[in-house]
Amino acid sequence: MNSERMKERLDALIQLGRHNELRGAMMMLNEVDIAEYMAELKKEHLLMVFRILPKDISADVFAYLDDEKKQELIELIGDGEIRALIDDMFLDDAVDFLEEMPASVVRRILQSTDEHTRNLINQFLRYPENSAGSIMTIEYCEFHQGITARQALDNLKRTGIDKETIYTLYIIDQSRRLCGTLALRRLIMAPDDALVETIMDTTVISVKTLDDQETVADTVRKYDLLTIPVVDNEERLVGIITADDVMDVIEEENTEDFEKMAALLPSDDEYLKTSAFQLAKNRMPWLIVLMLSAILTGAIITHFEGLLAGAVGLTAFIPMLMGTGGNCGAQASTLVIRGLALGEVQFKDTLKVLWREFHVGLMVGLALAGLTFLRLMFLSQSGLTVSLVVSISLYCTVVFSKAIGCTLPLFAKRINLDPALMASPLITTLVDICSLLIFFMIASQWML
Amino acid sequence: MNSERMKERLDALIQLGRHNELRGAMMMLNEVDIAEYMAELKKEHLLMVFRILPKDISADVFAYLDDEKKQELIELIGDGEIRALIDDMFLDDAVDFLEEMPASVVRRILQSTDEHTRNLINQFLRYPENSAGSIMTIEYCEFHQGITARQALDNLKRTGIDKETIYTLYIIDQSRRLCGTLALRRLIMAPDDALVETIMDTTVISVKTLDDQETVADTVRKYDLLTIPVVDNEERLVGIITADDVMDVIEEENTEDFEKMAALLPSDDEYLKTSAFQLAKNRMPWLIVLMLSAILTGAIITHFEGLLAGAVGLTAFIPMLMGTGGNCGAQASTLVIRGLALGEVQFKDTLKVLWREFHVGLMVGLALAGLTFLRLMFLSQSGLTVSLVVSISLYCTVVFSKAIGCTLPLFAKRINLDPALMASPLITTLVDICSLLIFFMIASQWML
Repeated sequence: MNSERMKERLDALIQLGRHNELRGAMMMLNEVDIAEYMAELKKEHLLMVFRILPKDISADVFAYLDDEKKQELIELIGDGEIRALIDDMFLDDAVDFLEEMPASVVRRILQSTDEHTRNLINQFLRYPENSAGSIMTIEYCEFHQGITARQALDNLKRTGIDKETIYTLYIIDQSRRLCGTLALRRLIMAPDDALVETIMDTTVISVKTLDDQETVADTVRKYDLLTIPVVDNEERLVGIITADDVMDVIEEENTEDFEKMAALLPSDDEYLKTSAFQLAKNRMPWLIVLMLSAILTGAIITHFEGLLAGAVGLTAFIPMLMGTGGNCGAQASTLVIRGLALGEVQFKDTLKVLWREFHVGLMVGLALAGLTFLRLMFLSQSGLTVSLVVSISLYCTVVFSKAIGCTLPLFAKRINLDPALMASPLITTLVDICSLLIFFMIASQWML
Repeated sequence: MNSERMKERLDALIQLGRHNELRGAMMMLNEVDIAEYMAELKKEHLLMVFRILPKDISADVFAYLDDEKKQELIELIGDGEIRALIDDMFLDDAVDFLEEMPASVVRRILQSTDEHTRNLINQFLRYPENSAGSIMTIEYCEFHQGITARQALDNLKRTGIDKETIYTLYIIDQSRRLCGTLALRRLIMAPDDALVETIMDTTVISVKTLDDQETVADTVRKYDLLTIPVVDNEERLVGIITADDVMDVIEEENTEDFEKMAALLPSDDEYLKTSAFQLAKNRMPWLIVLMLSAILTGAIITHFEGLLAGAVGLTAFIPMLMGTGGNCGAQASTLVIRGLALGEVQFKDTLKVLWREFHVGLMVGLALAGLTFLRLMFLSQSGLTVSLVVSISLYCTVVFSKAIGCTLPLFAKRINLDPALMASPLITTLVDICSLLIFFMIASQWML
């Protein structure tokens, strides 16, 4: 769809006050696109457009607005409208929304809703952040195991309209324990009088309310599911999580890993919506730790000052050695961290990984050191001793960096730390120290 | 499920040769778990277990085996079995599988299938790698717009059993152009005699066969879809892509970004399944480029050799300056790269981003430089001149690194390069050069 043209057309209808046409035009659009359009509207038009939307669409559109616009709208509309809005939203969307609002807004909204909804919302708000409970929804279809296919289908036609998904039905026993799932396709194809318990699938994959959302995403991805049921400690069904929410979790977890690997504290907000002060605060802690740990490299250099004073030329190779070592270590750690995140590598593979990285280091080191030797010997004419010292140091640095880079994330995993924390900046700092020590030790052997 | 115990029980049944019980036990498991179990079986048991599985399950299990095991099995079974297997598999799984097999195996498999399947597979194999066409499936339900809800439902019961999803139905016109989608829930709730064209949703979101899989993932995520239709250049429906495949694409694209950001060439295989030689090959190119670019930092140091000879102590600060600069640049670039990937940041935001990073740099720089000044002045007693030179250099380095780190990915995007290529190693190298120049220029002003 040509979104520029669409925007112009809608703008024109607003200007001309042609509300009926505007409603018609809006209804041709996807809710996401309507929300995107509304995000750029001025306050006075925002409310008008929102009220023009058919009721069943406006709640969906509202869920897709960003937090700022949501708050703006809530402040503009009356209590009755708020109540209708929250009732029309899926419970998980409503909870997500409330989690981001200031306390005063939350209070006003909860006062406007009826007691049942308020209790449900309060219960959901109590689940820990990033737990399965906090992202699940209760709009699913459940049936008791004793009923027939026909009864289930009739029931579904009556009650299914408000559910987030009706394509997987959940079968529970007397004590509400989840005992099977039934794909709608299977139900449709089944004879009318078949008991659901005879056609249901009993190999149920589920998660617990307190499981981390990362576990949820891993499980859904592993079993290629479109929805996953959430049960409490007594195996009673309490909610479901749908694939679209899982995709958001996957991207969120990946963003967190990217951030950790770049020595950032994870942030919850989009980059452009985070204040410069908050950005600075998220970056400071690791920068300070890493900067202070560089005191060690400084101390090593100071220790070998005598050597450097006699051969100032050696200083010129320090950045190349440290840089290459850092890059080699980052390569190894990134692959291992990623492998761990995707479940392709485990702690028990440590020796296998180390052996592999040792081999890779030998090969890569040979190529890089060889190239450096040739360059120094024949291009820069640095002399045999310097060329040998630098290229042998480089070789050892590469092999060491690969070993450090692959081992640290595995050990972090072992002691239940996030492997992503052991990524390039931390490894670079360690590798800096090793490469300087290697360089100076080899240099002082040969050149003093 | 306790997978260790499950494994032991299955092993025992295999040892005892109790094939019927074994089949029963297998049927209690999810296909993914069966495939996981089979992955560790010896050759002689592999074939036996595979043949014991009910036909409708074995094709699914096969799709979840890893490439090595698939090939092993294909080499063990007869042509008739191959034909049945390929017929039972979803076309997208069959194509994925064939793409990974050696040519000789592919030839044998294609010879075993009937002409219709062979033609379809060949057509799919022709779509470029990572295009929407290459990951779509043809097992969807389509209806012409003229029929009624009752007809559609009856039709579905007859033909839906083999489809990957029947929850979204696709409505086409005479020329096979996609004109709407119909959620199964809507069809079920509709009166029998309603025409599908009156109840279908005409705001169809679709992708083209040649669209990149990243576009597919972005669209599905944006609109929270469970399936997305794929159309050709004439808007004719040719396939669909389901959410589980999109999740794999998301993880694949993220892995690629992680790899690029760590100066690795992207690889297709899991870490432990890639040979050491291949790993070395993927790492070499960028390492060599970055290593050679470090010649510049070396040249800068050589140029200022006179300065360093007079004040060898300054050398000790080089790693700290370069390291902190590199980390600052990596932080900024990571946030911008991630923002670009998630569509939260665009090229038109360049000035906004730069302004923001400038502010962040001022704040972060103040904290780091202040800390360093205090440390040098009072803890190491390095004297006022050195303390000032180092901390002012640090301040400028931080501000510069942030600016470079945020700008490069945006410009890469502008000229249609992958922003992830502009990540930490490349930025570190640039930052190294800047920080050295800043340091030496300030030092030679004040200390000569």
